[in-house]
Amino acid sequence: MLRVYLCLSDIDQRGDRVMAKVVGILGSPRRYGDTQLLLRLALRAAEHDGCQTELIWLYEEEIKPCLGCVSEDVKACRFPCIFEDYGKLILQKIREAEGIILASPIYWYNVSGPMKNLLDRLTCLENMAHIEGYSYLEGKVAAAIAVGKDTGAMMAISSMLLSLNSMGAILPAWAMAYSQAADVLKDEEALMDAVNVGLLVSGLIRRLAGQEGRIMYLYDPKLCRQLLREVLLERKKD
Amino acid sequence: MLRVYLCLSDIDQRGDRVMAKVVGILGSPRRYGDTQLLLRLALRAAEHDGCQTELIWLYEEEIKPCLGCVSEDVKACRFPCIFEDYGKLILQKIREAEGIILASPIYWYNVSGPMKNLLDRLTCLENMAHIEGYSYLEGKVAAAIAVGKDTGAMMAISSMLLSLNSMGAILPAWAMAYSQAADVLKDEEALMDAVNVGLLVSGLIRRLAGQEGRIMYLYDPKLCRQLLREVLLERKKD
Amino acid sequence: MLRVYLCLSDIDQRGDRVMAKVVGILGSPRRYGDTQLLLRLALRAAEHDGCQTELIWLYEEEIKPCLGCVSEDVKACRFPCIFEDYGKLILQKIREAEGIILASPIYWYNVSGPMKNLLDRLTCLENMAHIEGYSYLEGKVAAAIAVGKDTGAMMAISSMLLSLNSMGAILPAWAMAYSQAADVLKDEEALMDAVNVGLLVSGLIRRLAGQEGRIMYLYDPKLCRQLLREVLLERKKD
Amino acid sequence: MLRVYLCLSDIDQRGDRVMAKVVGILGSPRRYGDTQLLLRLALRAAEHDGCQTELIWLYEEEIKPCLGCVSEDVKACRFPCIFEDYGKLILQKIREAEGIILASPIYWYNVSGPMKNLLDRLTCLENMAHIEGYSYLEGKVAAAIAVGKDTGAMMAISSMLLSLNSMGAILPAWAMAYSQAADVLKDEEALMDAVNVGLLVSGLIRRLAGQEGRIMYLYDPKLCRQLLREVLLERKKD
Repeated sequence: MLRVYLCLSDIDQRGDRVMAKVVGILGSPRRYGDTQLLLRLALRAAEHDGCQTELIWLYEEEIKPCLGCVSEDVKACRFPCIFEDYGKLILQKIREAEGIILASPIYWYNVSGPMKNLLDRLTCLENMAHIEGYSYLEGKVAAAIAVGKDTGAMMAISSMLLSLNSMGAILPAWAMAYSQAADVLKDEEALMDAVNVGLLVSGLIRRLAGQEGRIMYLYDPKLCRQLLREVLLERKKD
Repeated sequence: MLRVYLCLSDIDQRGDRVMAKVVGILGSPRRYGDTQLLLRLALRAAEHDGCQTELIWLYEEEIKPCLGCVSEDVKACRFPCIFEDYGKLILQKIREAEGIILASPIYWYNVSGPMKNLLDRLTCLENMAHIEGYSYLEGKVAAAIAVGKDTGAMMAISSMLLSLNSMGAILPAWAMAYSQAADVLKDEEALMDAVNVGLLVSGLIRRLAGQEGRIMYLYDPKLCRQLLREVLLERKKD
Repeated sequence: MLRVYLCLSDIDQRGDRVMAKVVGILGSPRRYGDTQLLLRLALRAAEHDGCQTELIWLYEEEIKPCLGCVSEDVKACRFPCIFEDYGKLILQKIREAEGIILASPIYWYNVSGPMKNLLDRLTCLENMAHIEGYSYLEGKVAAAIAVGKDTGAMMAISSMLLSLNSMGAILPAWAMAYSQAADVLKDEEALMDAVNVGLLVSGLIRRLAGQEGRIMYLYDPKLCRQLLREVLLERKKD
Repeated sequence: MLRVYLCLSDIDQRGDRVMAKVVGILGSPRRYGDTQLLLRLALRAAEHDGCQTELIWLYEEEIKPCLGCVSEDVKACRFPCIFEDYGKLILQKIREAEGIILASPIYWYNVSGPMKNLLDRLTCLENMAHIEGYSYLEGKVAAAIAVGKDTGAMMAISSMLLSLNSMGAILPAWAMAYSQAADVLKDEEALMDAVNVGLLVSGLIRRLAGQEGRIMYLYDPKLCRQLLREVLLERKKD
């Protein structure tokens, strides 16, 4: 049996460029904190590259923890999960997107609890491999962001990226941005990395769809400042 | 300023042996699954060595996710947390114990969401270092158990043990048991390791209190079978 | 400054298919052990998909440990490193490849020492970003394999994949295969995963070069058995 | 079979205090860099608490990589390993110590290659459990230090501490110090943590031997400055 790649087949196109959808998942209790800033910057970069984006805030409502149905009956776990909760809504949005950017604060060298709950709930997308023959996350492009004052960024990123890759997501080069600085606005490397997370997720989606698309890091401080300005302005309006 | 070690000062004693309290935290949705089995076995071994034990099931009720108050004001996070929920009850029990054994299923190479929520909530015990001068977890003895069919045991254990150690907990030798076997009852190494988790947590508590106490691995298949039998009988009665 | 993607520009082509080069790096002391088997199977799958491959055995000769020149002077670390050793030869081969598959036994929940030495030495490829404006690993496609009897596969894989991604490598979906079974030849999931590591590295290289190329998992037991047979035959001839 | 704890039985005593031996293992290519500074500070604190110490520099000579003999024949791997190299000398010194502090620079979110080679070689101490019934590392007290400019401290520490704990070492509270600061001399938290690594390793050794010994964090900036001064003076004399 040969699985067919459908992921980008029915995407709207704008001229010769794919109009892909990228969802950003914010796993921080702070709706407008530093984690959100880097995530919003990444999404803004993806928009700049022509994508539609949406930011989902995990703390908006409760996400019930995964019950691990799959461990009793491999066919019991299927999209869209048994729970009728906020998590279901998010799973639906992830299902429909071509790109996913997970962003978490660093809590004890790892992601936050709600982000972990979401990762566990993603099982119902991945487990469709046992039901329909392919993971619903297969072929999506993913990246991760982690922000905290202590160390642990790479463990949090590892938790997010390895899970997503094991579920079928493709990771662009430099699929991560993180900051452990006191003030993220002064962490120029993190800001530039966040911009690249957006550009490279968008660029790889395009490439996979047979279009032109960036797959290498762009060091462009001017663009970074411009996108940051837009993000900060947008925040004020919220 | 020299901090004084009080942890075992007011423990009830039974003759010349410390009557320490060990809490086991079950982070699995399955109340009587394999994770519970290894945890119960570890607790049974601690009882065998003279400890009082209690098993707490994280899925019994909701544990609200940590809001990271500490990141805005370092003094804002203090025991027993701002939430009046099931988590508060658990924090209280952990506060009163000398030993802690965390047990989680392996979900995506890591602990389950509710276990992560609990780890995050433990911050209010640790952060007392900034308020009263010492972490409320300091000097407690801790260990971890992880069970799953896929790899990832060591990442889940790392998440639990490094967090606890960073909060002030002391780790006995071989502070971990894990099984990735199809049938945990046939995973003799995991069963023996679980017994040792209980014995070594108990033994180190004793040693720290100036008593005799085991600090080295005990390879004793007969004792292991006996304790396992007791655990399995106890389950039937539940 | 906009970096240009050159990586596949001068690859030989065979008809309309890219003739990409994939190097497999074997970090096990056993030249014909289980780690080699899964790696060889992945490479065989890449050949089946039209790639040239080469297997490099890290234990063949000494690889000197990285001296961390970069931490004193960011421009001091540049390809091909200061050492005239076996490591230099390997760095050159990695430089010339479009795909990289790292394979390590699991030693203490991590990669082997020589594999770690190689990862550290890769810094001179990555650090060209500070000298020529782009990492010499940028745009290459990478995956990892880990084999051992104990847990720790995901930590070893994390160490390899996150490093490579942070150096600019792109990761296909399911960029990993691992086995913790007593007999890897009976671990059908690991064998199929290894085949997919080869197919998906090859497929993504192609896609990035604007060709047709597989990016989704292929569940094909017949192909798996055929490639395994070829690998086992080839071993006998060695 | 009940294993007997002998570890401290024949230690020299000075009055009523144990004269324990603590070895510090430096896994950095820089003999007098930041990693060495934190390690030396930890050792100085242990001396201050009455221990003998010795610092071993891994880059002094070659440490051959582990050949994984154990995976072919569980009894083939035994202290002091088959290699007659610098590694053997180090294994002997670790064997004779009551405390071990491993210190590594952070290379690609992990320990350096030579530190990994040493961790792998420690197997011959641990594997004595299969030959003499107990690990030669059992009951020793261990801690870890990691220093680097990028994130990854906790992964490097995890690699060191979980391995040691799995080999039988006991971990004191706060068994870790790390710095990711530009200038470690200004990273007051890291300096204080390093002092505590030394004090708590020493204190726990004492407690396990039935003596008085500190097991809780000491926040003492004056002592920290004094020990730091001594370390810096000592460096000049080298």
